[in-house]
Amino acid sequence: MNEFEFIDNLTNFLDIKDKNVLVGFGDDCAVIKCGNKNLLFTNDCLIEDVHFIKSKISPEDLGWKLVSVNVSDIVSSGGYPRWANITVALSNKDIDYLKYVYKGIRKALDFYKFSLVGGNTSKSDRIFLDMFLVGETDRYILRTGAKTGDFVYISGELGLSRAGLELLLMDKKSYEDFELELIKYHTKPLARIDLVEIIRDNASSCIDVSDGLVGDLNHISQKSKKMIILEEEELPIHKLLKLYCEKYNKNPLDYILYGGEDYQLAFTSKNNLKDCIKIGYVKEGEGVYLKSNGEFKRLKGCGFSHL
Amino acid sequence: MNEFEFIDNLTNFLDIKDKNVLVGFGDDCAVIKCGNKNLLFTNDCLIEDVHFIKSKISPEDLGWKLVSVNVSDIVSSGGYPRWANITVALSNKDIDYLKYVYKGIRKALDFYKFSLVGGNTSKSDRIFLDMFLVGETDRYILRTGAKTGDFVYISGELGLSRAGLELLLMDKKSYEDFELELIKYHTKPLARIDLVEIIRDNASSCIDVSDGLVGDLNHISQKSKKMIILEEEELPIHKLLKLYCEKYNKNPLDYILYGGEDYQLAFTSKNNLKDCIKIGYVKEGEGVYLKSNGEFKRLKGCGFSHL
Repeated sequence: MNEFEFIDNLTNFLDIKDKNVLVGFGDDCAVIKCGNKNLLFTNDCLIEDVHFIKSKISPEDLGWKLVSVNVSDIVSSGGYPRWANITVALSNKDIDYLKYVYKGIRKALDFYKFSLVGGNTSKSDRIFLDMFLVGETDRYILRTGAKTGDFVYISGELGLSRAGLELLLMDKKSYEDFELELIKYHTKPLARIDLVEIIRDNASSCIDVSDGLVGDLNHISQKSKKMIILEEEELPIHKLLKLYCEKYNKNPLDYILYGGEDYQLAFTSKNNLKDCIKIGYVKEGEGVYLKSNGEFKRLKGCGFSHL
Repeated sequence: MNEFEFIDNLTNFLDIKDKNVLVGFGDDCAVIKCGNKNLLFTNDCLIEDVHFIKSKISPEDLGWKLVSVNVSDIVSSGGYPRWANITVALSNKDIDYLKYVYKGIRKALDFYKFSLVGGNTSKSDRIFLDMFLVGETDRYILRTGAKTGDFVYISGELGLSRAGLELLLMDKKSYEDFELELIKYHTKPLARIDLVEIIRDNASSCIDVSDGLVGDLNHISQKSKKMIILEEEELPIHKLLKLYCEKYNKNPLDYILYGGEDYQLAFTSKNNLKDCIKIGYVKEGEGVYLKSNGEFKRLKGCGFSHL
């Protein structure tokens, strides 16, 4: 199942007649006009044995992560999070576990500064956590706005979360310190709320890197109907990822281009920005390409194909 | 696990500092001030083998029901539904099934006149459908506002959904026509959107009857700190419920007082209203009582106890 095709198919025939709905399905957030404000709607869930394994993440980190993955969508749309509802489904045996999940949720609410206002609980064999988050912005940023001549930026180094996930799944008896740090990037991601104003004031398009840089930039490319060129020598390699790739004989580029769940932002802007990392540019055309030693390779969802 | 105690415990320590949050946890909807509007936030989910059994409900009815149970919370708060997000988790084998669920969702969106604006899909062994719905109202109605001297109303006859559920679970090879009608009350409930203005303009408190009349009125009683008296002779028995109880030797009162998922409204008002059914009144004190042949019996969640 391709999540994106699947949603597209089912939502294409849901036509929206409400003029207050400025943006519907297909972006990080829907945008609703409410008086003179733009509200941003998003939702994201964490399901046991699909998105997390109970023995591999602390309940506090799980609560933190649930909040962060939702905040990330609001931030990538140029907004601040405001109000959330939560659905929690679990079995009686997990009630004590849930207390610690809520501890993590509370810490994240304090950090990102917004309110959980409503919720619903249900029984379920497996833990299911679903959050709906509403944010607010003066200027919303979509995937559709990349312009020819824009630069492509990322908000930080990528690939750490995937390395962390691989380490977790190795089930090692003991981990080196740098490995524990990488695992933390996976279990306790940080949404880049510090960059809301930079995104809101500068970005022509933006997406949060949840599925991997190439997959996510392909969304911007498709929605903006532009070509995106990444310059290999500009792609930053985090020192922890470097250590990981040396130890386990991996290619960092695979992690940077295809690793998911980093929750950094990838965006386009015509401006020169110091706080983010310039990794490429936007041209007329279509697709995402990697420029490497003067050659261009087209990058698809999960591999290389030549231009 | 008692859903209400459980949520209370976990949310008590989530203090809300945002002045735009007029009402947080603990009512049918949270209420958010947005400019000069009151937004109503609610969410409700349907989980396979918890809330529904695939072989017992058509996917179209399931989609309709998901929408209706959410709309019902908005209506009971005196508002109209406006915008919703949906989370869908399912396995690949259920994708075709989901198409029909969406057909039911679309019919319900057309009927209740609001827009699905965003969504998220995920894998899961069991089907999980979660809706987050935002409504709007000029005057929001809570569980807290019942006043001494108010009348108690219901918007229609109760107990039909429970009779329908019992019939479904009987797994009969064939059903009589009246039985099929009862089953439909369970599988395709109707949220009383036709009553929004009556509720908004007249109700001092309101709740939708999802857990059963007694359980739900106990919420109003507790939150309003008032006693609620129901008069047995005023409780209407629907002709289908009468047929059911005669055939299966059941007591209709059990169904009316304790049957859930009818999605009728129970509310209090000082006004004489013709469109709803007056079934009792509000006094100083606490608890929900049934007045029957001059005697008062206290009604708790799931049984009788004498005054």
